[in-house]
Amino acid sequence: MGWGLAMTAPRWLLALDFGGTKLSAALVEAGARRLRRWRARRSIPSPPGADARYDQSTLLALADELLAGERPRAIGVSFGGPVNADAGLVILSHHVRGWENIPLRDQLQARFGRPVSMDNDANAAALGEWKFGAGRVGTGHVASLLYVTVSTGVGGGWILDGRIYRGADSLAGEIGHTIVEPDGPICICGRRGCVESLAAGPNFARRTRERLMAEPAAGAVLRELVSGNLEAVTAEHVARAAEAGDELAREVLVEAARALGFGLGTAITLMNPQRVVLGGGVTKSGELWWRTVREAARANALRVPEMTVEIVPAALEDDAPLWGAVALAEELL
Amino acid sequence: MGWGLAMTAPRWLLALDFGGTKLSAALVEAGARRLRRWRARRSIPSPPGADARYDQSTLLALADELLAGERPRAIGVSFGGPVNADAGLVILSHHVRGWENIPLRDQLQARFGRPVSMDNDANAAALGEWKFGAGRVGTGHVASLLYVTVSTGVGGGWILDGRIYRGADSLAGEIGHTIVEPDGPICICGRRGCVESLAAGPNFARRTRERLMAEPAAGAVLRELVSGNLEAVTAEHVARAAEAGDELAREVLVEAARALGFGLGTAITLMNPQRVVLGGGVTKSGELWWRTVREAARANALRVPEMTVEIVPAALEDDAPLWGAVALAEELL
Repeated sequence: MGWGLAMTAPRWLLALDFGGTKLSAALVEAGARRLRRWRARRSIPSPPGADARYDQSTLLALADELLAGERPRAIGVSFGGPVNADAGLVILSHHVRGWENIPLRDQLQARFGRPVSMDNDANAAALGEWKFGAGRVGTGHVASLLYVTVSTGVGGGWILDGRIYRGADSLAGEIGHTIVEPDGPICICGRRGCVESLAAGPNFARRTRERLMAEPAAGAVLRELVSGNLEAVTAEHVARAAEAGDELAREVLVEAARALGFGLGTAITLMNPQRVVLGGGVTKSGELWWRTVREAARANALRVPEMTVEIVPAALEDDAPLWGAVALAEELL
Repeated sequence: MGWGLAMTAPRWLLALDFGGTKLSAALVEAGARRLRRWRARRSIPSPPGADARYDQSTLLALADELLAGERPRAIGVSFGGPVNADAGLVILSHHVRGWENIPLRDQLQARFGRPVSMDNDANAAALGEWKFGAGRVGTGHVASLLYVTVSTGVGGGWILDGRIYRGADSLAGEIGHTIVEPDGPICICGRRGCVESLAAGPNFARRTRERLMAEPAAGAVLRELVSGNLEAVTAEHVARAAEAGDELAREVLVEAARALGFGLGTAITLMNPQRVVLGGGVTKSGELWWRTVREAARANALRVPEMTVEIVPAALEDDAPLWGAVALAEELL
């Protein structure tokens, strides 16, 4: 490679994150561990008429701004919804219309003339955490990792032997839709008692509101936090009230954490991962939540002395999918 | 390679299966799809004083007989109990004493002067089915497969992207010890309501005996099959009575099949395998058992049109671990 070429073509990687509530782009030098330049634009609340085309043109404009006329060497993409990674196809978005069957990888390849690798945000976040965050151990990485995001929903991704494991139909990792209480609440997937129906923030917030209405004498701290407006109760309120000793809040939080831990225990028994990494807003729920998740996972996992799994907090938070996109791009070099 | 050398050193692979109830050895030419010579010796009932040393000397004698002075190119070993495959170490046998922490791989390598690869029987059977049996599709193989043996216990093994997935501590695949009924029967692992506690042959046979004792008017066909000796009821009797229309037998069989299907549904949701292969004696329980397993798996798995898993019978039966040992040896060439 000539000197002039090296000057004009640094090993830029472009990372794009089509998130449910945010569009982010970043430039990173290959091998670097810091985002060189990055931009994000909140797309929620979306402007009227926002759709897949709006998302794409917004994020491409951010990318062009970052690139300032230079070309990236490779492009990684995290998409907030189901994708067929092998085909480079977005299947749909649960947040933005118009994303049905969009060949996003080929479109980006055509636009930039560079290779593109794409995955859903749970897999991308898993890869990001594995490579740059909570999956590191010493100077290397754990051999196997389950990443779970616990937020408005519960999603997951597997890194096995250093690679995203996608499954036969790009559907692996759906721990949020494993059933832990066959008679539990109805889930958006149409079945009952999935981990998500119990452990996702909005779902245990709703359960809290129901209990507050049914038990007028309980939940004093919670009621104070929302000035008596029960409709305003969020998962964050439940966590804060639980920390302050509110008994009702503690019970609901334990119920939610236990459901997640139960699901994790089954995943651990089936796959024996070296590490489980938990991210997403609900993981900020405090020590009671963490202790309950870990205890329930241990109680529900096969108990043999050889099993050495650790359950740890995510390190990259909201940036995990973007870092995953960086890792996807690096794999193309 | 010279002609003379080719004459004296065919590409023999030696496969050894240290089974719980049988010791088997086979010679195969690499790339061949038929066992060239094989021998087996039932070790159950074991002679008095039989132990790990007895197993080893018996199986080595069988191997020497097969080899007739020739040397194998590589050796694959299936062991009926937990092993640390990376370290080549047997952890223990549930059937034969003296197997604790035996470095079987190194011992065999020293004896034959050839590379040895070893795994537990569930992983070996999974690999055998994947490569030579129910994992084939067209001229190739499925991308991912869960093999489950349903017999006196319930074990499992994963083949992901064409390789055994062992997990961080060689413990992956323990579907028998995923919990499907938290208030269910006590399992040998010390917890309640594991798949094995409900779906394994001896366990639902026991449940049948309990019901027959509690319900003197029920189970006429079953009672006839064992001439009134309820202690003699086995899983096979239950299956035969169910086929003949015995209502009690049908109920117990459905309960057992449903527990397995429930566990499979969770495994499918988590890992999205392309194929699930079921082997072991209990899978001979007839059409009601198979239909119930498939229905329960479908009902408990994430329901999206993209999910394309098939649940199929094993093709190699008792020979699956031995064929897995062949495949392990082939990987060493």
